Amino acid sequence: MTYEELFQQISSKKSYLCVGLDTDIRKIPAHLLKTADPVFEFNKQIIDATVDHCVSYKPNVAFYEAQGAKGWESLQKTIEYIPNTHFTIADAKRGDIGNTSGLYARTFFDPASSGLDFDSVTVAPYMGSDSVKPFLEFENKWVILLALTSNTGSSDFQRLNIEGSALYEHVLRTSQTWAGADRIMYVVGATQASEFQKIRSIIPDHFLLVPGVGAQGGNLEEVSRFGMNAHCGLLVNASRSIIYAGNGLDFAEKAKAEALLLQNEMEIYLDKYCK
Amino acid sequence: MTYEELFQQISSKKSYLCVGLDTDIRKIPAHLLKTADPVFEFNKQIIDATVDHCVSYKPNVAFYEAQGAKGWESLQKTIEYIPNTHFTIADAKRGDIGNTSGLYARTFFDPASSGLDFDSVTVAPYMGSDSVKPFLEFENKWVILLALTSNTGSSDFQRLNIEGSALYEHVLRTSQTWAGADRIMYVVGATQASEFQKIRSIIPDHFLLVPGVGAQGGNLEEVSRFGMNAHCGLLVNASRSIIYAGNGLDFAEKAKAEALLLQNEMEIYLDKYCK
Repeated sequence: MTYEELFQQISSKKSYLCVGLDTDIRKIPAHLLKTADPVFEFNKQIIDATVDHCVSYKPNVAFYEAQGAKGWESLQKTIEYIPNTHFTIADAKRGDIGNTSGLYARTFFDPASSGLDFDSVTVAPYMGSDSVKPFLEFENKWVILLALTSNTGSSDFQRLNIEGSALYEHVLRTSQTWAGADRIMYVVGATQASEFQKIRSIIPDHFLLVPGVGAQGGNLEEVSRFGMNAHCGLLVNASRSIIYAGNGLDFAEKAKAEALLLQNEMEIYLDKYCK
Repeated sequence: MTYEELFQQISSKKSYLCVGLDTDIRKIPAHLLKTADPVFEFNKQIIDATVDHCVSYKPNVAFYEAQGAKGWESLQKTIEYIPNTHFTIADAKRGDIGNTSGLYARTFFDPASSGLDFDSVTVAPYMGSDSVKPFLEFENKWVILLALTSNTGSSDFQRLNIEGSALYEHVLRTSQTWAGADRIMYVVGATQASEFQKIRSIIPDHFLLVPGVGAQGGNLEEVSRFGMNAHCGLLVNASRSIIYAGNGLDFAEKAKAEALLLQNEMEIYLDKYCK
């Protein structure tokens, strides 16, 4: 999916919601545990319920890996089930030296190799340019680079001051030499809304993947006011607050209601700030 | 495996060699492609051939993931096959916010969940303390934290100067408050041998996992001279130079010969520098 196609999806759905599929076998409704693949069955019903209200899905790969080979099968069925109108994110936080990153790129971008065909993958920047570039060799695929994350540990290194700028600002600046706003997005933690202005002065055009609205307590209005650009430039993720909104037979309806609430709020902010 | 048990293995085998199982389906000998699980069959023969000359095995998880669910099955069979005298490393470069890192820890440390039971996993430090600590909650399991890697991209961020010290030195210092030398090791690139002295002044007792001897061109003598401590404190990895030493019916014998060459060299350095 291209930058323009993603913006078109956002404009037509009036939503920049990403639904995080952090599907935990220990948390899904009991009645699904009898099915052949409970994780996929849960995801399928969540996708059916939320597809009109979001523009993106983000399986958190850890939750699938933790189930071993069976989990990878659930992940493969999930990614095949998501319609290609929706931008798919493998939230995997990968990154290694060049030839190994090339293998990780094949994992998420080359269905002939792994069975998976994501639009994008989250990548950790610590190992530098040659750990990221192999992902950019796949046409029309995206890297979503960690910049400023929403956890307390983000202070340990990401905010260290290097000649007047935080490490995460160096990550934003340096990585711009690797590819443009049509191939790289950044993970920016929603609990740091006051920093969006600084971030937007460095990367005015890029899409930002904002985790942490919902269960992690971010403020959607603030994120939208400070983070939005003329092409929206935001994908705001909600995981647990949507997928675990209910725990009974009606879990998918409850997920739909939560997604709709966020989409309604997003429609207001798109009118107000997307300019 | 404990710190002392690892040192005992090193002392009795007179080796600190880690064999990297970067097993690429596109590179293994043709006669194995007819077997039911060529990747596992290759690993099995490599392990049989090298088991007396090394103390550790390090599957590079990317190579297995790239094969999807099938690759995870090969990885599971491989880890089950490695004798428990050998320290096992999941080279996976994981790291995410707390609850997700907890899932990654289950992936590699909890066989009841994923089928995998590694001794250790490599972890990226960018997201800070709460991204690493969930791995340390598993008793007798180890985190191997990226500090200074051997690729050219290591200059992009790891060597940035922060108040007189490089970022990787901050990673070494800060992470010492999370756990001791009995639970954390560090990845330190072998091409930076002159920096071992600086690193050893910060972490005198920790084990270092040194990639890059062999195909990546590091110098084993220099690494051993500057990196070794009184408990050896080194695991030196070789991957391609061993596992792809041959490409015919005798590939395992050729791998054994390469491993033996390195082990013979290591025996000399243990006598000379392990004090």
